[in-house]
Amino acid sequence: MAVYQTTDLTAASFSVALFGLAATTFLLLMGSAWVERKWRLPVALCAIAALIGIGSVYEAREAWFAGNGVPVVYHYVGWTVSMPLQVIALYYLARTAGNLTAGLFWRLVVVSVLMVFVRYLGEAQFMHPTLAFLIGLVFWLYLLGEFYFGRMDDVVRNATGDHLRRGYFWLRLIVTIGWAIYPLGNFLTAFAGMIDDGSLSVAYNISDILNRMAFGVAVLSTAVLASEENTRA
Amino acid sequence: MAVYQTTDLTAASFSVALFGLAATTFLLLMGSAWVERKWRLPVALCAIAALIGIGSVYEAREAWFAGNGVPVVYHYVGWTVSMPLQVIALYYLARTAGNLTAGLFWRLVVVSVLMVFVRYLGEAQFMHPTLAFLIGLVFWLYLLGEFYFGRMDDVVRNATGDHLRRGYFWLRLIVTIGWAIYPLGNFLTAFAGMIDDGSLSVAYNISDILNRMAFGVAVLSTAVLASEENTRA
Amino acid sequence: MAVYQTTDLTAASFSVALFGLAATTFLLLMGSAWVERKWRLPVALCAIAALIGIGSVYEAREAWFAGNGVPVVYHYVGWTVSMPLQVIALYYLARTAGNLTAGLFWRLVVVSVLMVFVRYLGEAQFMHPTLAFLIGLVFWLYLLGEFYFGRMDDVVRNATGDHLRRGYFWLRLIVTIGWAIYPLGNFLTAFAGMIDDGSLSVAYNISDILNRMAFGVAVLSTAVLASEENTRA
Amino acid sequence: MAVYQTTDLTAASFSVALFGLAATTFLLLMGSAWVERKWRLPVALCAIAALIGIGSVYEAREAWFAGNGVPVVYHYVGWTVSMPLQVIALYYLARTAGNLTAGLFWRLVVVSVLMVFVRYLGEAQFMHPTLAFLIGLVFWLYLLGEFYFGRMDDVVRNATGDHLRRGYFWLRLIVTIGWAIYPLGNFLTAFAGMIDDGSLSVAYNISDILNRMAFGVAVLSTAVLASEENTRA
Amino acid sequence: MAVYQTTDLTAASFSVALFGLAATTFLLLMGSAWVERKWRLPVALCAIAALIGIGSVYEAREAWFAGNGVPVVYHYVGWTVSMPLQVIALYYLARTAGNLTAGLFWRLVVVSVLMVFVRYLGEAQFMHPTLAFLIGLVFWLYLLGEFYFGRMDDVVRNATGDHLRRGYFWLRLIVTIGWAIYPLGNFLTAFAGMIDDGSLSVAYNISDILNRMAFGVAVLSTAVLASEENTRA
Repeated sequence: MAVYQTTDLTAASFSVALFGLAATTFLLLMGSAWVERKWRLPVALCAIAALIGIGSVYEAREAWFAGNGVPVVYHYVGWTVSMPLQVIALYYLARTAGNLTAGLFWRLVVVSVLMVFVRYLGEAQFMHPTLAFLIGLVFWLYLLGEFYFGRMDDVVRNATGDHLRRGYFWLRLIVTIGWAIYPLGNFLTAFAGMIDDGSLSVAYNISDILNRMAFGVAVLSTAVLASEENTRA
Repeated sequence: MAVYQTTDLTAASFSVALFGLAATTFLLLMGSAWVERKWRLPVALCAIAALIGIGSVYEAREAWFAGNGVPVVYHYVGWTVSMPLQVIALYYLARTAGNLTAGLFWRLVVVSVLMVFVRYLGEAQFMHPTLAFLIGLVFWLYLLGEFYFGRMDDVVRNATGDHLRRGYFWLRLIVTIGWAIYPLGNFLTAFAGMIDDGSLSVAYNISDILNRMAFGVAVLSTAVLASEENTRA
Repeated sequence: MAVYQTTDLTAASFSVALFGLAATTFLLLMGSAWVERKWRLPVALCAIAALIGIGSVYEAREAWFAGNGVPVVYHYVGWTVSMPLQVIALYYLARTAGNLTAGLFWRLVVVSVLMVFVRYLGEAQFMHPTLAFLIGLVFWLYLLGEFYFGRMDDVVRNATGDHLRRGYFWLRLIVTIGWAIYPLGNFLTAFAGMIDDGSLSVAYNISDILNRMAFGVAVLSTAVLASEENTRA
Repeated sequence: MAVYQTTDLTAASFSVALFGLAATTFLLLMGSAWVERKWRLPVALCAIAALIGIGSVYEAREAWFAGNGVPVVYHYVGWTVSMPLQVIALYYLARTAGNLTAGLFWRLVVVSVLMVFVRYLGEAQFMHPTLAFLIGLVFWLYLLGEFYFGRMDDVVRNATGDHLRRGYFWLRLIVTIGWAIYPLGNFLTAFAGMIDDGSLSVAYNISDILNRMAFGVAVLSTAVLASEENTRA
Repeated sequence: MAVYQTTDLTAASFSVALFGLAATTFLLLMGSAWVERKWRLPVALCAIAALIGIGSVYEAREAWFAGNGVPVVYHYVGWTVSMPLQVIALYYLARTAGNLTAGLFWRLVVVSVLMVFVRYLGEAQFMHPTLAFLIGLVFWLYLLGEFYFGRMDDVVRNATGDHLRRGYFWLRLIVTIGWAIYPLGNFLTAFAGMIDDGSLSVAYNISDILNRMAFGVAVLSTAVLASEENTRA
């Protein structure tokens, strides 16, 4: 294992992301046993998204240790699995409050997988970068549209639980603000020809920490609070 | 660990398969605790099939990183264990609806093991490739025959649960369509003398993702829905 | 990790044994939670025997990759732990039907450990090979004597459960037929001066797969069936 | 893996820390199932802090084996995750006795993360060392202030359980005395220009063993005793 | 991974110790769920002692593969964690029968840690070997004194359970006879200037197998038998 120095901020951010995601994974895995039956699935999905994060951050760090920057594909490989998992977690979170169609489920899965895949095609020059960037952007906006104006928002708005509404609000915010880094990074590497000299990885790591950890912890705390609310009522 | 570049689609597909199978394994392992007693075995078998998939995809990826393509044996080693597991999972899924003979169980196990083994013998030139290909094809068709016209189909058709019927329908479809790639790949490498330059591995990875992940998730969701149905009734 | 080719049957058999034992371990670990209290110990012991099998097969495979055959000690190291575990599993399986003395337990443990250890001493030329072979054979025959004509057979014969009797019959058969390969292999390497060029490892792998996997699965299915029988009665 | 000699006290202290933290992690993970519902979260958080400790000590030891001392960043990476976890554990421990505001929670999280981060910035010369040292000191004093004179102290003082009060007393002491080594080490490396020749790592390892292990075990024993107290009452 | 030959008895004994400790760890981890609440802690502590044994034996084996004998520090690192764990397990085992003071607990912990640490200081020449040997001996005799004539013996002698008395008798015997190898080995390496050419490691491995495995299994079987006794009564 290569030894990194104190001034290598990129390696430090990778290591912090690695340990932070490991901590999140364990907390969510244990937490999934503390909540009501119907809350287990969203918590478990976030735990798995964090677990996948451990693997992808570990491999990206190895690439960084090997020198010459981290090929951007390392980030996309992790997102291909973790982003759909988080979108599904949000779907099942909303579903604790009311019925949602299976059609919506499939639309969310397909769109979130394609969003990451199209961006990757653009980065790897398998597709025209501008086109890929725009399609990826449209897919992201579609997801935001579902979260803000779609059936999920309706169901949550009419839910009896106060905690669910607040949790949904914060999770949606993470998806809106936190995920905005990804099209931005996509834009920089695909158009501006930026090669990752470490600073992009630092930015991605901070986002991944926030998006995967904060997202998972928010889902868990919503689930715990809502479970307690029900038990008391 | 070798560093792969953004344009190396084969390595990316291996990594996505790896993370996707890890996510599936964890979801199914956790999910096996959420379903009724009699559903646990099929879910557990799918979890184990996905787990074996992690191991075999990991080793195939290492072979790819070492250069010069992935020897086809890497795929066969994984299938030898995972395909019989999936066939048995389907058997136990049907068995939740009614009694099935132990004889059928042993026929399914032996035929599915031999199907993979014979194909391997053909690929390794230990047996005449044409003969191996044809025997492998016959074994696969036998399995399909059991699923479509055998006792399992009878039992499922007469089941009370709506979810079981639908689940069985989809799982059978995966085995029919998804598994068709394997004799095709067998044909290409054994006869057309094709050496895997990455494109065959990409095809196999996509199939494995669909077959192992979709199969497992379909079994889990059938089990969860059928468990809830029973609880409500 | 060394890359093995499609025609390397020995490496393929090691890999299949590895994945098969991993699958068995997980199935038995999960299965130990599905059976009645008194059945947990024999199932757990078989799970641990399979787990140890993973470790020893993995190390033997690494030795094979390093070239020049697998030193026979790699097999003996695994057997030293797994064979006593299986003998104890059989003891506790019989004990679910009636009381067995602690003296029998200690005799079985000591004899099964010595059986493997003496064979090893012969192979490593620390003891005269012929003598070691004969002593090992006597120990094996002693174990068979206990299983066929000893107190364990009595207890099982008088058991009320039909499944236990059938399970015991099959397990005894595995120990009789499946374990016969080991003195045979011992004979070949110790006397005929055979050096393992791969074919002996293939034979050992097939035996280990059958002995550890079939043994474990037979114990689990006996336990599950007997547990259900009791619940219904 | 490099072999270390008997006289290499630093390597020995790393190995003892590694094994001790592994033992602590397992004990706390198992222990979190032995306590009352409301005590699970603080125990789980300490288990995760110990788990992260395994990772960071392992990597620091690898760096030591590679020669030329352990870059101080290796310690900071672990603390960034484990120190906030321990502060949160203390928060939830106090919270079992009465209500605490969410504002306090966020203040504690942010201050404990910043405390470690600012010290790191100083060590890496990204910020003026003196300034970083002083800010880190202020943050630590703020945390001590909250523990000694804040709302948490009030809540614990008015708790009915005797064990909670005693547990809180000891945990606060660990944070006061045990954590004092960190600003001290910070001072030595940042100002005195000390390069870690092993003796600083030994000091850090002893502190980490005490802080992570003693802290975790103290939380677990408080939780177990308080749970029993409640059951009896 | 280095390949060891059939005649390398030291490597074989390391491997058997490795697999045996892995088997013990799993058995005890699973077994801790089969016993009464109050028995869980001693069983868990023995499981953790065996787990630590896996790690330390693995590292010692790696050192052996690297050639030139195993530095004696590798054994001491494992004992520093596992011996106090076993002493505490014995304390909690006795405590199931009656109350024991916290003072006794701390004396046992401190003395058992110091016993191993002082011996290490002697081996590494950080302290005069004769002095270290004598102090280590005194600490061991103190522990034996507590076990034979102290409060723990009183409590166990007055216990109602027959199994507890018998279990305590055997465990004390293991600590008396099995642990006698350690001062002996200490004497040989520190005074007789013996360098470990493998035979000392074989002796240590056999002792470790007996001490960690037999100790753990004896605690588990005592716990299981005592739990059943209580359930029946």
